[in-house]
Amino acid sequence: MSEQHISGAIIKRLPRYYRYLEELLTEGVERISSQELSERMGVTASQIRQDLNHFGGFGQQGYGYKVLYLYEEIGKIMGMDRIKRIIMIGAGNLGQAIANYANYRKRGFFIEAIFDKDPDKIGTEVQGIIVRDIETLEEYIKLNPVDIATITIPKEQAVPVADRLVKAGVKGIWNYAHVDLDVPADVCVENVHLSESLMSLSYRIKNQK
Amino acid sequence: MSEQHISGAIIKRLPRYYRYLEELLTEGVERISSQELSERMGVTASQIRQDLNHFGGFGQQGYGYKVLYLYEEIGKIMGMDRIKRIIMIGAGNLGQAIANYANYRKRGFFIEAIFDKDPDKIGTEVQGIIVRDIETLEEYIKLNPVDIATITIPKEQAVPVADRLVKAGVKGIWNYAHVDLDVPADVCVENVHLSESLMSLSYRIKNQK
Repeated sequence: MSEQHISGAIIKRLPRYYRYLEELLTEGVERISSQELSERMGVTASQIRQDLNHFGGFGQQGYGYKVLYLYEEIGKIMGMDRIKRIIMIGAGNLGQAIANYANYRKRGFFIEAIFDKDPDKIGTEVQGIIVRDIETLEEYIKLNPVDIATITIPKEQAVPVADRLVKAGVKGIWNYAHVDLDVPADVCVENVHLSESLMSLSYRIKNQK
Repeated sequence: MSEQHISGAIIKRLPRYYRYLEELLTEGVERISSQELSERMGVTASQIRQDLNHFGGFGQQGYGYKVLYLYEEIGKIMGMDRIKRIIMIGAGNLGQAIANYANYRKRGFFIEAIFDKDPDKIGTEVQGIIVRDIETLEEYIKLNPVDIATITIPKEQAVPVADRLVKAGVKGIWNYAHVDLDVPADVCVENVHLSESLMSLSYRIKNQK
């Protein structure tokens, strides 16, 4: 199967399929029909067939999808067999919450180091990982490959830290700071702007009434 | 100006305008041209004019936009003058991180109560708010109006808690649990599925290389 044929719209839906397939695996389900998956996910069976037939993993009519095979294929498409090593900038509540989020580890992501500038935090442990001094960031990256850096520090500090990450060669930033980061075109930034999500919800509730 | 004329695409962009306008207010800027705003935001001046002219707030050619007026108008469109009262289900790291996020308060959202089922957390304080027993949830909602309930508990517990919230009359759920909630059509759910965001980033990094 060639990845070139997968549209952006399907790519957006894949994490959700992945989540449902993971649940099925946890329940010990080895195969599932598009009809059953449709009922679980609340999308049409036809949509599921259109999306998942790109990945193979289905046998003859009536056999259904092989859950593990599809799960692994989607994981590969999403880069989860290769993009694994995460460092975190910020050991506050949000950083700790993300580090604790066991799901990421199950999915093959590993938080390998945590940095902070607060002397009270440096040297303490978060999920068994010792918090390092942010001053040692470049030194760490020189010695250890990093796929993704998560930023959970206030926006004023986030901008210079992002510059340092980019200069050190990091190509993926998962940004929780409430600011748009200005990075070169070959660096990917995924923003999680929580308050914008809250504003969207507010808008929808207001217009629902 | 009538809200009916504002397209969904503009609505999606408004929280970002709101954020930049807020920054300008903090800096004491009273008015700004579409050109200057364009340079800050990294979008074309023509896009800005098209978007913001829906809201008025601009004078004659060369005057620029009135920052405070636009800020307030966008806030009203997004329902932020009315959707204010938040309760939180879950006083763990993620719940605490969200409660600490001072931005929300600045924007007019108020976290009014926090609930948890953990006896070690009940009675403790998070941001000056005492953590209540989740068993008292219905009683609280009966006595206090609630616009939005934030869910930051594991997915197994999130499903029955969402049912309880809906039965108690809550119409807005900000869901961080890694599960799709099944709610009636008049209840709005905004999902923040962090691991799906991480998967998207992983995909983009992989395809960038």
